[in-house]
Amino acid sequence: MEKLQENITELKEQIKKMEYLGNALGVLYWDMRTGIPKKAIPYRGEILGYLSSELYKLQTSEKIKELMDYFKNVDELDDVTKAMVENVKKDYERTKKIPADKYREFVILQSAAEAKWEEAKEKSDFNIFKPYLEKLVNTTKEFLEYWGYEGNKYNTLLDFYEPGVTVEKLDKVFTELREAIVDLLNRIKNSRYSPDTEFFRGHYPRNTQEKLGKLILDKIGYDFEAGRLDESMHPFTVNFGNKDVRVTTHYYENDFLSSVFSCIHEGGHAIYEQQIPDELIGTGLAGGTSMGIHESQSRFYENVIGRSIEFWSYFYPELTAIYPQFKDISIEDFYKGINKIQPSLIRVEADELTYSLHIIIRYEIEKQLINGEINVDELPKVWNEKYKEYLGIEPANDSEGVLQDMHWSAGNFGYFPSYALGNLYGAQFFNKMKKDIPDVYEKVARGEFNIIKDWLRDNIHKYGKIYEPVELIKRVTGEELTAKYFIEYLNAKYSRIYNL
Amino acid sequence: MEKLQENITELKEQIKKMEYLGNALGVLYWDMRTGIPKKAIPYRGEILGYLSSELYKLQTSEKIKELMDYFKNVDELDDVTKAMVENVKKDYERTKKIPADKYREFVILQSAAEAKWEEAKEKSDFNIFKPYLEKLVNTTKEFLEYWGYEGNKYNTLLDFYEPGVTVEKLDKVFTELREAIVDLLNRIKNSRYSPDTEFFRGHYPRNTQEKLGKLILDKIGYDFEAGRLDESMHPFTVNFGNKDVRVTTHYYENDFLSSVFSCIHEGGHAIYEQQIPDELIGTGLAGGTSMGIHESQSRFYENVIGRSIEFWSYFYPELTAIYPQFKDISIEDFYKGINKIQPSLIRVEADELTYSLHIIIRYEIEKQLINGEINVDELPKVWNEKYKEYLGIEPANDSEGVLQDMHWSAGNFGYFPSYALGNLYGAQFFNKMKKDIPDVYEKVARGEFNIIKDWLRDNIHKYGKIYEPVELIKRVTGEELTAKYFIEYLNAKYSRIYNL
Repeated sequence: MEKLQENITELKEQIKKMEYLGNALGVLYWDMRTGIPKKAIPYRGEILGYLSSELYKLQTSEKIKELMDYFKNVDELDDVTKAMVENVKKDYERTKKIPADKYREFVILQSAAEAKWEEAKEKSDFNIFKPYLEKLVNTTKEFLEYWGYEGNKYNTLLDFYEPGVTVEKLDKVFTELREAIVDLLNRIKNSRYSPDTEFFRGHYPRNTQEKLGKLILDKIGYDFEAGRLDESMHPFTVNFGNKDVRVTTHYYENDFLSSVFSCIHEGGHAIYEQQIPDELIGTGLAGGTSMGIHESQSRFYENVIGRSIEFWSYFYPELTAIYPQFKDISIEDFYKGINKIQPSLIRVEADELTYSLHIIIRYEIEKQLINGEINVDELPKVWNEKYKEYLGIEPANDSEGVLQDMHWSAGNFGYFPSYALGNLYGAQFFNKMKKDIPDVYEKVARGEFNIIKDWLRDNIHKYGKIYEPVELIKRVTGEELTAKYFIEYLNAKYSRIYNL
Repeated sequence: MEKLQENITELKEQIKKMEYLGNALGVLYWDMRTGIPKKAIPYRGEILGYLSSELYKLQTSEKIKELMDYFKNVDELDDVTKAMVENVKKDYERTKKIPADKYREFVILQSAAEAKWEEAKEKSDFNIFKPYLEKLVNTTKEFLEYWGYEGNKYNTLLDFYEPGVTVEKLDKVFTELREAIVDLLNRIKNSRYSPDTEFFRGHYPRNTQEKLGKLILDKIGYDFEAGRLDESMHPFTVNFGNKDVRVTTHYYENDFLSSVFSCIHEGGHAIYEQQIPDELIGTGLAGGTSMGIHESQSRFYENVIGRSIEFWSYFYPELTAIYPQFKDISIEDFYKGINKIQPSLIRVEADELTYSLHIIIRYEIEKQLINGEINVDELPKVWNEKYKEYLGIEPANDSEGVLQDMHWSAGNFGYFPSYALGNLYGAQFFNKMKKDIPDVYEKVARGEFNIIKDWLRDNIHKYGKIYEPVELIKRVTGEELTAKYFIEYLNAKYSRIYNL
């Protein structure tokens, strides 16, 4: 018993150090994405490479090996300690299999690639990014040989972001989802009604957008004393502990809705991290349990809450104080306008219905890339063909096509499916939430966002990474992953809007 | 010979790691000072504590000890390698003497103290900061017992910032300086002329100040592709390598001169760091050689250049484009206005003449604190008395008195004298610069700032830390440190302005 306590304490010591280093790296990355001077990027890459290799050393140390060997034979562990050990073990095994120098090279490559991707996107020239993306794909394939895989190679990548989800499962649930979306989309296309969005045209100075974004974030429960809002090319959330959870957005002065919804989206991620209990700091479990569950929170806030009529009926006085032109627009028309279904090229600007098609395209491309069925050269072509086939439209250039997302520039293959999974999880959670709080939308209309935040804390956030997504969803909803509730939700919402 | 090369390579490997960690720490500190959320400060302190202790481990490792032992017996080293070894040795000895856990506690204390100082300054309540300052003073005294000292205890602290300068030397040169200032100040007080500054009153929106600051920084040669300008409570410069050199300023909307001159001042620091040659990266010598030499650059740019009539005659079109009200003010009147001598309470707002008195006060207080002749309790009283005695004015509260500077909150005792030394060095360098470029002020009037920047690079910046300040000043000017040139400069400049 004494030995057990000793080893738990020792493990926590090790985890604490990893968290310190991981969070320091986080600050350096955040800084790189929000304001590093151009000439500083190569050296920053070296610093990141060095710190990452130090983290690698901690994760793969003899000490960790000994501790893992010890815990292998301990049966009786409480949920937290068990998850703590499992989490470290997973990292240990994943990392240990990659030779240290290869890992370091990869980190340096990542930051160089990110800079090149930015340049390529700006100049809308895939060729600038291509050699870096090729290296990233090749490195990932090489790493997959070290990591190993069961069934499809892509399963191993999926497992990093969504433990327990496989290509087999995903193919099934995505097919169901795609068919339902295409069916609904066709009915919408055939409907005689189409929401007016002309009244959104205008000039919206960035400072007014920032004001509105901050106001909404504050109201839905994002804590500005434990976070901040900045601008970056692509919106994201990053956290260094649960008391420094930062969100970014991007302002387009001709489209205030873009920043509003990215603020709400990132706010959903951030509230998850801010509500992680202090007790989990130093256990390695202080964070969202998977990318998919994370996306379930952000997309829930963005779409289920943020694109509801109740949400805007509550915020209309604030909105019209900042943009008086909307005084002449009814809330109903505003609501329909923000929910207009319109196949488009940019994922982050996509409507709620077609969004998942963007993900399915990326998922299919990634699977093919990783399995060597297509190569990087062909990407713009394949990308454009799929957009034509699924969404009926084609990018005019790489910037609004294959270069639009930053994920690949960081080598994050296997990440994209989480977004669509987030939609499914979110609808499942919401189905349960409505049973606990039947008048949830009335509460939204009154600005009572805390009841939602509290429900999410008590059912999801407070567990951090104690439970993996498969177990968490079962615990909260009593059911396995299913596309059913999301499909129901989409049908109900858009049938009403489009009078189907 | 092979062994020598091997050891130089090994030493550089070690130094490189220290630089990576040091620069990562720098980014974390910069972030803490420019935008960390309030609740995140305690945990950030832990991260800084951890990384600092890792740096400590590198600086005091067995490997470094072995290398230092080896180099002790090597006579024939080029200037760079010799300086590289000396620099590491100094850090090794300084750090090794402090027990690791005490050092770590100190770093955690520093970041807590900085936050408390900010709060205390905001609320103008010394008592909030007092217990932290007491701990910082006591820790410094404790450390002095580990470090040891020759003569006055304060010498050891001085040596950190200005190697070779002692209390004995400083007492002498500061006395000479003080007497000259007081004499000139009396003559100014008795003169019948006083520059008009009424026309500076007004409202200057921060965005216009930012525009002007960026414009001036750019013109004098600060490279925005290797830096950025932000806002913080107290202006400062920080760099992570020579390609990421950041400056901050503070905007007061009723006083644009404050941010203008802090931009020029920090620009002087930053140009020094940006002009460090790439070859010195990874040697530990890639930076300014001492705080005093650093201040010689910043105060030279701020005062000798930035407060000259030629500088403003060049910038007047730009200034009046942003603030048209100055079209009615002659450049001569503007020039006299920005050089008005007026004893005041805030060091960073002080005029060029009385500035050094602010430093001499802090120097005297620090000496007494460290030697136990006064205690922290008495600080506000002693501070206010000295201001009354030297400058004839007294702070109305702690915020404009003893709490005004952040230095003590970081435990930086021994730093302040560098500012006044910077004035002296700067005048000495300028005396030599005028021999090489007799028409330097005509060039300023034409906006030819590159010739100044180049002269500073070739004579000072390119050496980084290869030469200590004592040697550098001798090399550049052929003379030892003297107050003579600065006193001559002050007398000439202010005799003209005040018709003495």
